[in-house]
Amino acid sequence: MTVTISSRSRFEIDYSITCRNGQSIFDYAHEICLEQTVEVPEECLTKDHFDNEIPGKIEKISQIPDSIDNYLVTISFPCDICSYSVPQFLNTIYGNISLKNNIKIISMRIPDELNSVFPGPQFGIEGLRMLLGVFRRPLTCTALKPVGLSAQELASMAAQFANGGVDIIKDDHGITNQPYAFFEERIKRVIDAVHKVNSKTGRKTLYFPMLNDEPEVLSKQISLCSEIGIKGILIAPMLVGCGTVASIRKTTDLAIMTHPSFAGTFFSSSEHGAMHGFLLGTFFRLIGADISIFPNAGGRFRFTQAECNTISDSLRKPFGNRKSSFPAPAGGMRIDRIGEMIEHYGMDAVFIIGGNLLVQGNNLTNTTGMFVETVQKKASEYQLAHAPFQNR
Amino acid sequence: MTVTISSRSRFEIDYSITCRNGQSIFDYAHEICLEQTVEVPEECLTKDHFDNEIPGKIEKISQIPDSIDNYLVTISFPCDICSYSVPQFLNTIYGNISLKNNIKIISMRIPDELNSVFPGPQFGIEGLRMLLGVFRRPLTCTALKPVGLSAQELASMAAQFANGGVDIIKDDHGITNQPYAFFEERIKRVIDAVHKVNSKTGRKTLYFPMLNDEPEVLSKQISLCSEIGIKGILIAPMLVGCGTVASIRKTTDLAIMTHPSFAGTFFSSSEHGAMHGFLLGTFFRLIGADISIFPNAGGRFRFTQAECNTISDSLRKPFGNRKSSFPAPAGGMRIDRIGEMIEHYGMDAVFIIGGNLLVQGNNLTNTTGMFVETVQKKASEYQLAHAPFQNR
Repeated sequence: MTVTISSRSRFEIDYSITCRNGQSIFDYAHEICLEQTVEVPEECLTKDHFDNEIPGKIEKISQIPDSIDNYLVTISFPCDICSYSVPQFLNTIYGNISLKNNIKIISMRIPDELNSVFPGPQFGIEGLRMLLGVFRRPLTCTALKPVGLSAQELASMAAQFANGGVDIIKDDHGITNQPYAFFEERIKRVIDAVHKVNSKTGRKTLYFPMLNDEPEVLSKQISLCSEIGIKGILIAPMLVGCGTVASIRKTTDLAIMTHPSFAGTFFSSSEHGAMHGFLLGTFFRLIGADISIFPNAGGRFRFTQAECNTISDSLRKPFGNRKSSFPAPAGGMRIDRIGEMIEHYGMDAVFIIGGNLLVQGNNLTNTTGMFVETVQKKASEYQLAHAPFQNR
Repeated sequence: MTVTISSRSRFEIDYSITCRNGQSIFDYAHEICLEQTVEVPEECLTKDHFDNEIPGKIEKISQIPDSIDNYLVTISFPCDICSYSVPQFLNTIYGNISLKNNIKIISMRIPDELNSVFPGPQFGIEGLRMLLGVFRRPLTCTALKPVGLSAQELASMAAQFANGGVDIIKDDHGITNQPYAFFEERIKRVIDAVHKVNSKTGRKTLYFPMLNDEPEVLSKQISLCSEIGIKGILIAPMLVGCGTVASIRKTTDLAIMTHPSFAGTFFSSSEHGAMHGFLLGTFFRLIGADISIFPNAGGRFRFTQAECNTISDSLRKPFGNRKSSFPAPAGGMRIDRIGEMIEHYGMDAVFIIGGNLLVQGNNLTNTTGMFVETVQKKASEYQLAHAPFQNR
């Protein structure tokens, strides 16, 4: 069954729905259409509601091949029902039905009318490469850690990372505004240290501090970042709200690196929540992630390589006129895995190695240098192996 | 195994952990302690880290009776690691481990040091009863709906609800700032309509508009509410961020009614996420919910009565010096279920009937009156049945 999309501007969500309660898939999909919009029994609606096409509308239902009870269902909603805001978009696509069963968000398509709501990354892959002056290899990134060090200690660590030639230094996502290293003192000391090294080496190492606080403090922190010349931040959309991240994208010129902290329950059921590629890929990119960190397969977390691939694909494939974002596989990565990571993610990725640099020994400058050199070497090998035949 | 809590102020989280990957429960719990704080292998930590007691600490592990591989594990964290902010508290207790397996938050205990971070409700059950002048029965609440009506139509509906004697009129949680009824026009028209009826009837019906937007718009909406005499709001913590709700609690004198929209993935696995009573009960209460809406058993959603009971218990049982919050069972409730709902939730609850009032017929004043009368009647019967013997 396929219904033609009406002339009024609508966006479309693809859900995977498992229908196991005796209800027909059509009835369950119809229930979702009402639940996510008018939230009343159909008998309470007037002709106006249908004329104005306010309820969700089933655009397509198809059984997933080889499944018994699993369907791909496309439902469309009128653009204006999201109030042109990110939180209300989420409310519309998954608010109440998050409390139901067996409904998983797979993908979405939005018309130009929502371009200002979802601008996508400000810098994107090319923009960040320009900022750094680094091309033809994956970017390197490491983390200031562990929480508990003083601002001075973190700044000295940052200097060593910058001297080692890393592209991006981020805070560990657990370092925010603790009394061990208050936000203001920390970011001032760290950016000073990084700038000093940059002016010596001529490189353009960037520092992305972690922001995670309540709105009043957060907005002061954002202003401070811009004031002191910080070019980008690390932030976890599920902790501060996706609308907060979208607003930073729209109102500042800070690059945004997103962290998946607190997002995990969306992936804990194969039949409910959201696909990895949707939430950490498409959605985080649309709200402004220039870089999306996710737990790489074979690290400390439970994502498979196939799931990671859906994230990196969603970040980089065309989506309207939006820029592409860097996938940043992380979470227990090691220098000895770089070759394999390049095979999986290619050149346009950010490789994050945190703890493993600390484990390697005390001379952080040297171990960082080894990390950067390994990426350069493996990238050259990869390019040679994948170059057109005549160039080998 | 029980370790005495150290003298430095720490908060405690109880997790239910299912250990199925061959790891011992002690090893998995220890991994969580590091993952949620220092996020480096133990060999990278200095003596200072342990002296300062920064890593998470296993306080207690006990096997859950009659289970094979399921343990109750208490882990403590130093208070200052949460930066005295709600988003960083969530980052600490469930940030990265949300991306692991089989870890469910059950309950928590916090020392006085975190009282200002988690003040609890501003009004609470007694405060809201004082505002309304309603005692000795559950409160009644209904919803302006469906989305798509004009501000004028919603205001006329509100007048009928108020004339019918309902205590609280809330927006449907999907009505935010759509062009059909923009926020500012809607809340001005509705509060005017409600005030007019109140001045005629002498009742104190309250109107709680739904707020769900990006930070800049949201903060203007909050100011507007206070300016025009609105006493409370409806908000979904998982959509705008729990820190945003906490901040409204701390910086305004608006009563807060929380909505569970977008929270469902925390409950979709029995082994991962959070217990119903923790998130929609304890946690929403701590960040300031005077009323917490949840989908009642037997409605359109999947919560069981036992799960709903954990929510209502967590909202009302003692938690430090904090006020109690109203449980608000909702989601497809009907007038004919009021007796049963009183049996389950007692007097200190808010009963929300939305769509069912619309279904009953066109005269909303009458159907609302029937709802209110039924609650009064069933409450009297309940009190009589449960009164001490000599008073019967």
